[in-house]
Amino acid sequence: MSNATDRRLWRDISVFDGLRTLPEPMAVITEGARVTLLTPMREFNEQLANSCIEMGHGGVMTPGLVDCHTHLVFGGSRAEEFEARLEGASYEEIAKRGGGILSTVRATREASEDTLLTLAKPRLEALIADGVTTVEIKSGYGLTVKDELKMLRVARRLGEILPVNVVTTLLGAHALPPEYKDNSDGYIDLVCQEMIPAAVAEGLTDAVDVFCEKIAFSVAQCERVFEAAQRHGLAIKAHAEQLSNLGGTAMAARHGALSADHIEYLDDTGIAAMREAGSVAVILPGAFHTLRETQQPPITALRKAGVPMAVATDANPGSSPLFMPTLMLNLACTLFRMTPQEALAGMTAHGASALGLKEQGRIYEGAVADLCVWNVEAPAELAYAVQPGRLRQRLLQGVVTHGG
Amino acid sequence: MSNATDRRLWRDISVFDGLRTLPEPMAVITEGARVTLLTPMREFNEQLANSCIEMGHGGVMTPGLVDCHTHLVFGGSRAEEFEARLEGASYEEIAKRGGGILSTVRATREASEDTLLTLAKPRLEALIADGVTTVEIKSGYGLTVKDELKMLRVARRLGEILPVNVVTTLLGAHALPPEYKDNSDGYIDLVCQEMIPAAVAEGLTDAVDVFCEKIAFSVAQCERVFEAAQRHGLAIKAHAEQLSNLGGTAMAARHGALSADHIEYLDDTGIAAMREAGSVAVILPGAFHTLRETQQPPITALRKAGVPMAVATDANPGSSPLFMPTLMLNLACTLFRMTPQEALAGMTAHGASALGLKEQGRIYEGAVADLCVWNVEAPAELAYAVQPGRLRQRLLQGVVTHGG
Ligand SMILES: [Zn+2]
Ligand SMILES: [Zn+2]
Repeated sequence: MSNATDRRLWRDISVFDGLRTLPEPMAVITEGARVTLLTPMREFNEQLANSCIEMGHGGVMTPGLVDCHTHLVFGGSRAEEFEARLEGASYEEIAKRGGGILSTVRATREASEDTLLTLAKPRLEALIADGVTTVEIKSGYGLTVKDELKMLRVARRLGEILPVNVVTTLLGAHALPPEYKDNSDGYIDLVCQEMIPAAVAEGLTDAVDVFCEKIAFSVAQCERVFEAAQRHGLAIKAHAEQLSNLGGTAMAARHGALSADHIEYLDDTGIAAMREAGSVAVILPGAFHTLRETQQPPITALRKAGVPMAVATDANPGSSPLFMPTLMLNLACTLFRMTPQEALAGMTAHGASALGLKEQGRIYEGAVADLCVWNVEAPAELAYAVQPGRLRQRLLQGVVTHGG
Repeated sequence: MSNATDRRLWRDISVFDGLRTLPEPMAVITEGARVTLLTPMREFNEQLANSCIEMGHGGVMTPGLVDCHTHLVFGGSRAEEFEARLEGASYEEIAKRGGGILSTVRATREASEDTLLTLAKPRLEALIADGVTTVEIKSGYGLTVKDELKMLRVARRLGEILPVNVVTTLLGAHALPPEYKDNSDGYIDLVCQEMIPAAVAEGLTDAVDVFCEKIAFSVAQCERVFEAAQRHGLAIKAHAEQLSNLGGTAMAARHGALSADHIEYLDDTGIAAMREAGSVAVILPGAFHTLRETQQPPITALRKAGVPMAVATDANPGSSPLFMPTLMLNLACTLFRMTPQEALAGMTAHGASALGLKEQGRIYEGAVADLCVWNVEAPAELAYAVQPGRLRQRLLQGVVTHGG
């Protein structure tokens, strides 16, 4: 790692600034933790170079990628279940063998904080090696106060041991734990009255998320969770309209949610509510791919309405075991017909917005120097080709954490 | 890199031997370029360890991956075309701007051998970093004698400068070059009478491939190419039944083709012909994904008929800009419902068979030590999760080329 107080210069570089590709080759200087110069190469004052470390020329610079929706902390593996299903086992057989999300809950509860940290670290390292500088990590496989807090502590520790900004989200209302079978309102009481206050007391969570779906929690239950979160001053967001249209997104938007995520089944009413609220639509093509869904999220309508679209890995053991953000750029374009510029904005500026971050995901003079430089000729190549190892340099708050 | 004469020991490792996962944890020893011991851990004679370098325990060992179908050597980029299409440009507009395969042909013809080498090297390095030890590389973007030979020379040179076995294939009959518009038979004459003999004279090609499709060459034209190839003692293979069912696979099988590749539209007659001939079915999920095809290859029927199935990247700038073999394992399972064991066999033992290689793609006592060790707990994880950076060690002919 290098010193953040050095002054560094990139020349003749194509810059995607978080929202668009700048129209001509640029010169970029960072100093300390900030971008201090962003200027067309043809206007660059050569004298400035004297005091700079030359960081190379050519290639593409983007903001460090923001993966705004992950479930990186979990115990166990679902590879066996994946294999059993492909070898012909029915859902019933897999459920009997103890598969599905509750197998992840069981393994996560059994694992110690240190074990969970050891398991999550290479997953997060894979994201970092593919350009991520800010990652959101949700709880949601503990489903007890103790185990949800344990997951959030692991998430915080990941941000301490690895060069990445970690944002945490309490997702207590992810699934109904077996102890509350037939008493989902009782479990929601636990989330509102104990889990949220305990997470706040330890300073463990930056936001609260819910899974609003027939197989999870109702709109009314999710609303109770949001109200509890807001009483504690926490931001809110929702997994909504993934498998059916319940109206969870509109409810979340009414409460000023940062984002609604998945939203394959979102209708025009929901889109209007999001636009009104300024919520970000988080597009998750990895789960769509893994679950072989056919219902496309309403990209055209979101675009038309001007609702910002983020793109994230949804990295998780069940529906998106895909630990590669640039793959998501490709899937967002190929499966959902987003443009490469939209997909990139979705993993930079709009990803940051989905987390309520104003400082990350953008390149401008004065911006925090969370940056990636890629061995490609145009930003669109990052979505067009899937090719690990194209990250040339990565900076976190001005410190070079990858590449020379 | 290490010395190939060292004796190396892996303990307690899960071994996928190219066809199946061995039922219990194994001990493996390599010596020189060969695997010299493959035994269940519980039967391991501890005294043997004294003379060995300990290479670690746990994890998964597979044969080095065999990517039996790639177009890695090409000039230009099609990222702009990818972006233009997603931004709403029609096929006509893109054709007018000079897009499509002929843009790759133009750029490849214009590029020098050194330029093509420089461009292809990072693509091949990406495959190597994801576990490939044997790669097939086709020509097919030159479409003149001079330019096809140039591509093949680049492919051979890649095998000299990087630690990987390169197999080359002349694919002169890939597309009709503009010079032969309305004279496709004349172009096939050129392939048969000049291109193949010239490639043979320089020792540049190991096999001959054709693209048998309405938009490319007819069954009769492809048969002429095969007959010319066989007069020169070359192995043959075909891109066939990708977009329609022309019968190219059956014709290729009658000629004893090593493989028929793509084969989404293959029917029972074609499958019977492949089984009869012992041809390998090369499954290419990357092109299916990129082109958003809906016609699935007949996996169930191939499985039932006992036709071996290989899986490959088809890495190319137009229909599969996906330079990541383990992603193909995931796509083969998720999109085509192959099992993880089938997908892995497709990138090891059956991939090697598709190239006519008897020595690669298998682990047994006496096998050549082209090996990968992965940081996963079970072979199925390689297909289940997409996560760059899981390769722990890689050996080529007993020499450690990655990992300690
Ligand atoms: Zn999620
Ligand atoms: Zn091909």
